[in-house]
Amino acid sequence: MSLRVGLIGSGYMGRAHALAFRAAASVFDLPVEPELALLADIDVDTARAAAEALGFASHTGDWRELVADPSIDLVDITTPNQLHAEMALAAIEAGKHVYCEKPLAPTAAEARPMVEAAEAAGTKTMVGFNYLKNPITALAKEIIDSGEIGEVFGFRGIHFEDYMLDPNTLVTAWRFDPTSGDGVVADLGSHIVSLGRHLMGPIDSVAAERQIVVDERTSPDGDPVKIEVADQVSSLLRFANGARGTVEASWVATGRKMAVACEVRGTEGALMFDFERLNELQLYTTGQPIGREGFTTILAGPAHQDFASFVPAPGHQLGFNDLKTIEIRDLIEGIHSPGGAPWPDFREAYEVQRVIDAIIESDRRGAWFDVDEVS
Amino acid sequence: MSLRVGLIGSGYMGRAHALAFRAAASVFDLPVEPELALLADIDVDTARAAAEALGFASHTGDWRELVADPSIDLVDITTPNQLHAEMALAAIEAGKHVYCEKPLAPTAAEARPMVEAAEAAGTKTMVGFNYLKNPITALAKEIIDSGEIGEVFGFRGIHFEDYMLDPNTLVTAWRFDPTSGDGVVADLGSHIVSLGRHLMGPIDSVAAERQIVVDERTSPDGDPVKIEVADQVSSLLRFANGARGTVEASWVATGRKMAVACEVRGTEGALMFDFERLNELQLYTTGQPIGREGFTTILAGPAHQDFASFVPAPGHQLGFNDLKTIEIRDLIEGIHSPGGAPWPDFREAYEVQRVIDAIIESDRRGAWFDVDEVS
Amino acid sequence: MSLRVGLIGSGYMGRAHALAFRAAASVFDLPVEPELALLADIDVDTARAAAEALGFASHTGDWRELVADPSIDLVDITTPNQLHAEMALAAIEAGKHVYCEKPLAPTAAEARPMVEAAEAAGTKTMVGFNYLKNPITALAKEIIDSGEIGEVFGFRGIHFEDYMLDPNTLVTAWRFDPTSGDGVVADLGSHIVSLGRHLMGPIDSVAAERQIVVDERTSPDGDPVKIEVADQVSSLLRFANGARGTVEASWVATGRKMAVACEVRGTEGALMFDFERLNELQLYTTGQPIGREGFTTILAGPAHQDFASFVPAPGHQLGFNDLKTIEIRDLIEGIHSPGGAPWPDFREAYEVQRVIDAIIESDRRGAWFDVDEVS
Amino acid sequence: MSLRVGLIGSGYMGRAHALAFRAAASVFDLPVEPELALLADIDVDTARAAAEALGFASHTGDWRELVADPSIDLVDITTPNQLHAEMALAAIEAGKHVYCEKPLAPTAAEARPMVEAAEAAGTKTMVGFNYLKNPITALAKEIIDSGEIGEVFGFRGIHFEDYMLDPNTLVTAWRFDPTSGDGVVADLGSHIVSLGRHLMGPIDSVAAERQIVVDERTSPDGDPVKIEVADQVSSLLRFANGARGTVEASWVATGRKMAVACEVRGTEGALMFDFERLNELQLYTTGQPIGREGFTTILAGPAHQDFASFVPAPGHQLGFNDLKTIEIRDLIEGIHSPGGAPWPDFREAYEVQRVIDAIIESDRRGAWFDVDEVS
Repeated sequence: MSLRVGLIGSGYMGRAHALAFRAAASVFDLPVEPELALLADIDVDTARAAAEALGFASHTGDWRELVADPSIDLVDITTPNQLHAEMALAAIEAGKHVYCEKPLAPTAAEARPMVEAAEAAGTKTMVGFNYLKNPITALAKEIIDSGEIGEVFGFRGIHFEDYMLDPNTLVTAWRFDPTSGDGVVADLGSHIVSLGRHLMGPIDSVAAERQIVVDERTSPDGDPVKIEVADQVSSLLRFANGARGTVEASWVATGRKMAVACEVRGTEGALMFDFERLNELQLYTTGQPIGREGFTTILAGPAHQDFASFVPAPGHQLGFNDLKTIEIRDLIEGIHSPGGAPWPDFREAYEVQRVIDAIIESDRRGAWFDVDEVS
Repeated sequence: MSLRVGLIGSGYMGRAHALAFRAAASVFDLPVEPELALLADIDVDTARAAAEALGFASHTGDWRELVADPSIDLVDITTPNQLHAEMALAAIEAGKHVYCEKPLAPTAAEARPMVEAAEAAGTKTMVGFNYLKNPITALAKEIIDSGEIGEVFGFRGIHFEDYMLDPNTLVTAWRFDPTSGDGVVADLGSHIVSLGRHLMGPIDSVAAERQIVVDERTSPDGDPVKIEVADQVSSLLRFANGARGTVEASWVATGRKMAVACEVRGTEGALMFDFERLNELQLYTTGQPIGREGFTTILAGPAHQDFASFVPAPGHQLGFNDLKTIEIRDLIEGIHSPGGAPWPDFREAYEVQRVIDAIIESDRRGAWFDVDEVS
Repeated sequence: MSLRVGLIGSGYMGRAHALAFRAAASVFDLPVEPELALLADIDVDTARAAAEALGFASHTGDWRELVADPSIDLVDITTPNQLHAEMALAAIEAGKHVYCEKPLAPTAAEARPMVEAAEAAGTKTMVGFNYLKNPITALAKEIIDSGEIGEVFGFRGIHFEDYMLDPNTLVTAWRFDPTSGDGVVADLGSHIVSLGRHLMGPIDSVAAERQIVVDERTSPDGDPVKIEVADQVSSLLRFANGARGTVEASWVATGRKMAVACEVRGTEGALMFDFERLNELQLYTTGQPIGREGFTTILAGPAHQDFASFVPAPGHQLGFNDLKTIEIRDLIEGIHSPGGAPWPDFREAYEVQRVIDAIIESDRRGAWFDVDEVS
Repeated sequence: MSLRVGLIGSGYMGRAHALAFRAAASVFDLPVEPELALLADIDVDTARAAAEALGFASHTGDWRELVADPSIDLVDITTPNQLHAEMALAAIEAGKHVYCEKPLAPTAAEARPMVEAAEAAGTKTMVGFNYLKNPITALAKEIIDSGEIGEVFGFRGIHFEDYMLDPNTLVTAWRFDPTSGDGVVADLGSHIVSLGRHLMGPIDSVAAERQIVVDERTSPDGDPVKIEVADQVSSLLRFANGARGTVEASWVATGRKMAVACEVRGTEGALMFDFERLNELQLYTTGQPIGREGFTTILAGPAHQDFASFVPAPGHQLGFNDLKTIEIRDLIEGIHSPGGAPWPDFREAYEVQRVIDAIIESDRRGAWFDVDEVS
């Protein structure tokens, strides 16, 4: 038995998914083997080349053909954000399971029907918030949920990279198209909001400030392009559990490359991580002997979730692609175990998107905004 | 010739000042020798013991006597915040120079007359924002001001410690008295705001959230005390130069001991420091050779301001007390050089206080608040 | 066309190889597809289970059968060290290419015939010194070879782990059998010696000290076992280029998990790395502006060798398994490109082994020992 | 009552001592006040200027005059190494206590009569191995001596700086004079050997390799100078307690500024520090909960020896000069407490020197050398 995968899109994430489907089958003992069946891209030539490069059995220049193909079990969407909804809705209607890159959609309003359709159809869904899959994230969550650091009351999260710093390059042009979402708020903001929810629970309200740092960029043709989407965003957060926090995202964070970093403060301890050191967590607990207090640097190892499936020796480290591999394992197990549910699913991604929308609305109003007010 | 110092208060900061006055005279070639002349404290016995321990020539149980003493040139105030104004005003009236611990006063309204009186009287003033005196801070400012990291557009600052985490101890009880200022906002918030202004320039407006984490503490007598001052605060910042940023302060930041940390993002570089590593600055500049980019860890050394006065060898490190020693040098030079002006003076401290007040008012209103609206 | 792989042994490294063969085919554009054809292990049941788990098409309980199978192109040896020679010699005689885990053999005397046989037969060989494959290692070598840090004169290398610290467990019992090599000297010492040679060139002579820290361990049956192989080793090194250095290995290095760390000092710069942070290199160059000198933390990224084949974004990090994947790519390309030669080959591994033997002999004699004296 | 100090030499260390004598009187509650009475230097003009700058009451161009002055209680020697013996012997003969910078003398043979004379005369002595005075060193020693990390079996120590890297400058010319000792072996080697003995106990034998990296330098007059003293040294160590280790020193360690770093491995834990982060210790203990193991970063604080005398708040950090201040406190208390003995005294410094001499002799012979064979 196999799970026949149809991939739409073959860019950075399309390739990452293809690698991860193959790796998951090697690394984990999956209930069903994924089969790279069909790849769709913008036109048939692009699709053919990608299918060959990524090892898909067949290809098509029309994603609707892929969605309509009765042999496909899972539709995997890695296209620009603004295309997710139409594709996912079509896939759900065709009875497929859907795996979609983040953010789920440019707005919560666009995401909502996706959730509703999926839940109505009973298809299984997943969104690629890969940082949730790091064994270090699982460790952080375990520490928080077990009460090891007491009652958590403070959070500080960032996702800082600098790939959009250079004003002379219009990298990944679609990301500057407002219909794809609000720039960094959608792209990296959704990652760090998903981590915040994962570790701390629901967010009630936000007070945010967006910033366009490079207000004119150059198109691939050399033309000036006026920029309307955010390069940076900072937000205060009120969590439902009473904790307070901040979240910031920037794709012009000079010098930072994958600074996905969280700090959680609790009444009996604290933890910190920065995924530029992907395999480390800093843990402090009160009650250490006097004169011996400090943050302990925990290196990921086989004592932590999923690590041993990759390598049995502590300190021997996972890489970024391994996070995607774990994600795929969760996807396939979620689809194939009876009553299983991949996670984070469309609903969770919709909840993330509501926070994103609240952040944007808060910035527009210059005031606190309740996430509940986002429809 | 000497500068006769009258110290009011002999706690943590009183002692730190006494050590620093003596050290400054050893380390630097001062224009005038400070003389530890007179110490005032809450009563004559406390004052006598402190004068002996700290090496003051005489003592008094009445600070008014100190202020009135015609032989005193400089009044040094290290008492609880709510007492600064009365003492400083009296000292200024008596024609003394005044050196006051931070924050200048519990509110800008209380601070303003202090500034006006000092400026009217022409006495010289200084406030103890000691982190501004770190050679690493001077280096950061030089890097920013010289344009080495281009136009700065982002700031992120924290001052995190955890000395108030334990709910069973009412440490430094006066800090929980609302008339001394708003808890951590006054105590640590003033430090990080002063750093933000120092590095980035004036702050136009803020959107802040205060938090009381431990809402009941225990008095020294074992009685429960309801807490009304903030344990944590986070604020969004709009700088006058267009940059955006955040600032956070917590005295319940579990595990953090002196995390006075700033990040500055510019169009051509970035810098970061965390004073738990007091002698290090991380510097990134664009334009490094491809494949060799990264943050450089600069260790303080004789190439940096004031360092060589302490030790001629790089990497040999200053300590916290050395910051106070530099501060005292600045104070004495500012007083004694013709046209000199110690810095940060009362006016700068008042400007810091206006930001503090704006933060509190923003929290109260749940909205952005302009610093200019603080009288 | 495919490269049919026969794997002998299915422990930690056997599985790592299987994962890497599959990953290499996904990640890289290989000249030929590896095919997991046949797996041999100690008996047919073990082999069958392993073949199924690791995805090999068939299995055998007799490695000689694997070596004799005319359809096998490459024999991959991951058995205990003392078995390498017989298996490799048989494979070479059968005209196979051979990929062997490190160390090549327990002694240089045992390794030498392996080199000679392979070179005489013209088969291609490779030994699994995976740390050489890290893009950070390639970066270090490029920096040294280009002269960026001037003439290198100093080296300091360690490989510290602690998996043998617990005296109550006789982990991986064969590693304590002296016929498999001298404990940590063979196991981790060979890794760090290979790195030293890779970065600094040939080693002329050594002065070393071995140490047995836990002199009695407990067998799986609970019996005491007297230990004769080294738990730690330290050696002074004289390199052929005139540089001096030290190398140390320990499998009882309390708290260290994968501390494969090197420092190289040159007349115009220095570099350092520690593979507990697998994606970082610290680089210092003289001639930085005054007051801006320091070590730069370079994060692995697409500017560095092989990185972009995994992920296009800097800071997004490779894991331990990715090193093996690069190794396999080098193996397959070395086998299939005309005139190609995988590296490090048996000869290089033999040279590493001569240093290992010189270290042991130096310890025995308590004096410097020339590597050339090792036959 | 006061302790009248006569200082010989007013360079880097002369000034550091003067600062520390004054600071010690401020920071600590000393049994007797030190009085900066008399300063001797190479000629009367140099001495006069230095006395004024450093705050000594009087001065002389003839150190013999200082030693002969009956009002002087303590002779403090900060001259080049080769002058220590004659000065110290004269001071001891005159019945003075003697405080001498490290190393005690260029050779153990020169140091021995100093020890014997001091012990015969009953005068008190101390040598300036200031790194022993760091609260972090005290913490490390406490951890080792208490058995917290079990039986210690491994040591790794370095003292790396780069102030002699530039071949175009003959910095501190006397350090290249072989009669002052063997270059870095004397200068930094003595520091790290003293730390090794302090933490691990006596050293039985050594196997060492010296290296001259820059074999020709330029004199202040621009003439070439052939160098005969070591720029680097590495040594294997056998400790009397059975532990093994290495020690290395370099004053051409490109990029390193004050890398005084030790690692100690024990059967139940390990510790590490690097004094480029002067206030941090890394501690690992076995027996941490599974999945929570790691090195804990302990920041110096009031729970550690002597810290609270400087500042009551953890994380607020001491600087290099503070180590000298603690050293002076130990000196004065050792002199003035009945039966007191400053430490490390001349005998300890002689034992350090024997190790240094053994290292040099081992290098000369190319073989292990017993410290006991050094007379």
